[in-house]
Amino acid sequence: MTMDAPKRTIVSVDAMGGDLGPAAVVAGLALSADKNPEIGFILHGNKSELEQLVARTEGLSDVCEIRHADEVVTMDDKPSQVMRNGQKTSMWSAIDAVRDGDAEVVVSCGNTGALMLLSMVRLRKLPGVNRPAIACLWPSHNPSGFNVMLDVGADVRADEDDLLQYAMMGASYARNGLGIARPRVGLLNVGTEEHKGRSELKAAHELITNAADGAQIDFVGFIEGVDLPSDRVDVIVTDGFTGNVALKTGEGTAKLISGLLREAFGATFLSKLAAVLAMGPLKRMGQRVDPSRNNGGVFLGLNGTVVKSHGSADATGISAAVRLAFQLAKGGFNQKLAARVASGDASRQDVATECRQGEQQE
Amino acid sequence: MTMDAPKRTIVSVDAMGGDLGPAAVVAGLALSADKNPEIGFILHGNKSELEQLVARTEGLSDVCEIRHADEVVTMDDKPSQVMRNGQKTSMWSAIDAVRDGDAEVVVSCGNTGALMLLSMVRLRKLPGVNRPAIACLWPSHNPSGFNVMLDVGADVRADEDDLLQYAMMGASYARNGLGIARPRVGLLNVGTEEHKGRSELKAAHELITNAADGAQIDFVGFIEGVDLPSDRVDVIVTDGFTGNVALKTGEGTAKLISGLLREAFGATFLSKLAAVLAMGPLKRMGQRVDPSRNNGGVFLGLNGTVVKSHGSADATGISAAVRLAFQLAKGGFNQKLAARVASGDASRQDVATECRQGEQQE
Repeated sequence: MTMDAPKRTIVSVDAMGGDLGPAAVVAGLALSADKNPEIGFILHGNKSELEQLVARTEGLSDVCEIRHADEVVTMDDKPSQVMRNGQKTSMWSAIDAVRDGDAEVVVSCGNTGALMLLSMVRLRKLPGVNRPAIACLWPSHNPSGFNVMLDVGADVRADEDDLLQYAMMGASYARNGLGIARPRVGLLNVGTEEHKGRSELKAAHELITNAADGAQIDFVGFIEGVDLPSDRVDVIVTDGFTGNVALKTGEGTAKLISGLLREAFGATFLSKLAAVLAMGPLKRMGQRVDPSRNNGGVFLGLNGTVVKSHGSADATGISAAVRLAFQLAKGGFNQKLAARVASGDASRQDVATECRQGEQQE
Repeated sequence: MTMDAPKRTIVSVDAMGGDLGPAAVVAGLALSADKNPEIGFILHGNKSELEQLVARTEGLSDVCEIRHADEVVTMDDKPSQVMRNGQKTSMWSAIDAVRDGDAEVVVSCGNTGALMLLSMVRLRKLPGVNRPAIACLWPSHNPSGFNVMLDVGADVRADEDDLLQYAMMGASYARNGLGIARPRVGLLNVGTEEHKGRSELKAAHELITNAADGAQIDFVGFIEGVDLPSDRVDVIVTDGFTGNVALKTGEGTAKLISGLLREAFGATFLSKLAAVLAMGPLKRMGQRVDPSRNNGGVFLGLNGTVVKSHGSADATGISAAVRLAFQLAKGGFNQKLAARVASGDASRQDVATECRQGEQQE
């Protein structure tokens, strides 16, 4: 194996935890390697199985280091047990590659709770971060096609200081992940009037209003659930309970509608014909709202970037998560986030640097 | 005007508050009156305007009493101001018709906050109810096509006792509104494992588990956002903050997808042709998920039933809300709910009676 270490951005990949097994993961890496000559992988799992899978794609072994792990974290394993006894799992090994500085980012499609807890324990929180958060991409009417929403499930609670920090971390992610120089940030509530909602939301409204200008964000104030897919906002801030319910409600609604659409197209001879005629545009639409295409929740606020891919992600989904991980790592996202959090309310200089780099990156 | 009072179920209607004005409301009543010979209305608003509108439909004036109100609650009015100064509004008059026993249920498509506050103050809470709740119908894979979700916005907080009461009130609504003899109740959380989520949810899980058998409900435990449109559950219990975000997220997602669908069908000549061919089944699908068709949030826990119709409801939407109001009033829903709450944990006898009547009603 030859690996031009200084030139490549190394992504640490847990090959084992997904629903579709390591074959889907390696197929995803092959797609990513094909598109990005600067990418390299450290792959964690059953060595002999992974060697066979990697050998199927010409040249893939040149950019893949394989590290053997005896055990796999299953979807049913309790996070606390994985933390106590999971030293031999591929997930643990994948996270430790980032901890040890061998890779800059880790990707896993395994057990979310275990990945979160192991990441917290092995990578630790960034200095100044109270609650790390999971950020997801949400299909929207924005030019990029997405909004960022956080927290979608790292912690069921968040007070006003946490919500302010989410606003800053989410804005940093929108700059580095979506290339938006001055992100518009909204706070999720049950109404848009300032007197509405829970007390911590009113307090957070004031904190973010005061910090917005210094952090070069546009604070659009309270938004409602109906605004999540809108083009009014780039970053949606909420606690992990509400965010998780919203994320899964959106997923459920999309599933219901696609099921009803299939019924509608199967209903009559003419509608079956219609399905054939409209197949191209409908397929493109389906891809746009398909969670496996915009695949990758990102844990923000740790000493290292962790990308959680959907458990049932196929090769295309894995590839999307790896592309996101690569983009963030290459742009030095986590160092910027750390600086942002450390500086408290960020200086304009800091933001300006971040934006220039974000633009170059595009 | 002749009104056979003892035979008719009287619905009190605020004719003024909706976005489309009283013409849409009266058109909705005309649709309802056409389908239900047993229905009667007390209509509140500008008398001369309403008389003209009612006169357009033959026979409608025979089942409509019109009560003049000088003022209208607008969507921008603050609830607290309406409560202090709103005595001359059509909304106040419509609620007071129920308070005074002239009608059994009130329907309004006006300002939700004002309607809630006025209803609370004028009708008062049922004895034993701590927090009244708003229940909505949620499109689902269930045979009836719907689930019941509550609270979707009456109160941003709910403790374990409130959640237990929501479970009981929601089950009662599912029996009387959807004709489901033994409703399956789920508690909305961020995971289905019993150790997950906020502390009040764990406590509520235990309370509902213990009460389920006596109340003849099936408690399916924790459910997630993705289960909201599923056929696993009939009644979804959550606090008003989470419920409101989920409701509006579902609405936003449905809007995004329908927008993308329109784009897809407009994309090519063939896809335009396809749209024409599949029009019938697609239209039926759209109607199924259209919130204005399953129109009507119901305030539960007051001395009188209050149905909130969507602010932008057209004649079809108003008619759907009126049909729901009529059905609940005719079956004596509020008396049953009051008995259920008063009895604490309901006796089997009570439930059995409720079910038999629910079945007859279908």
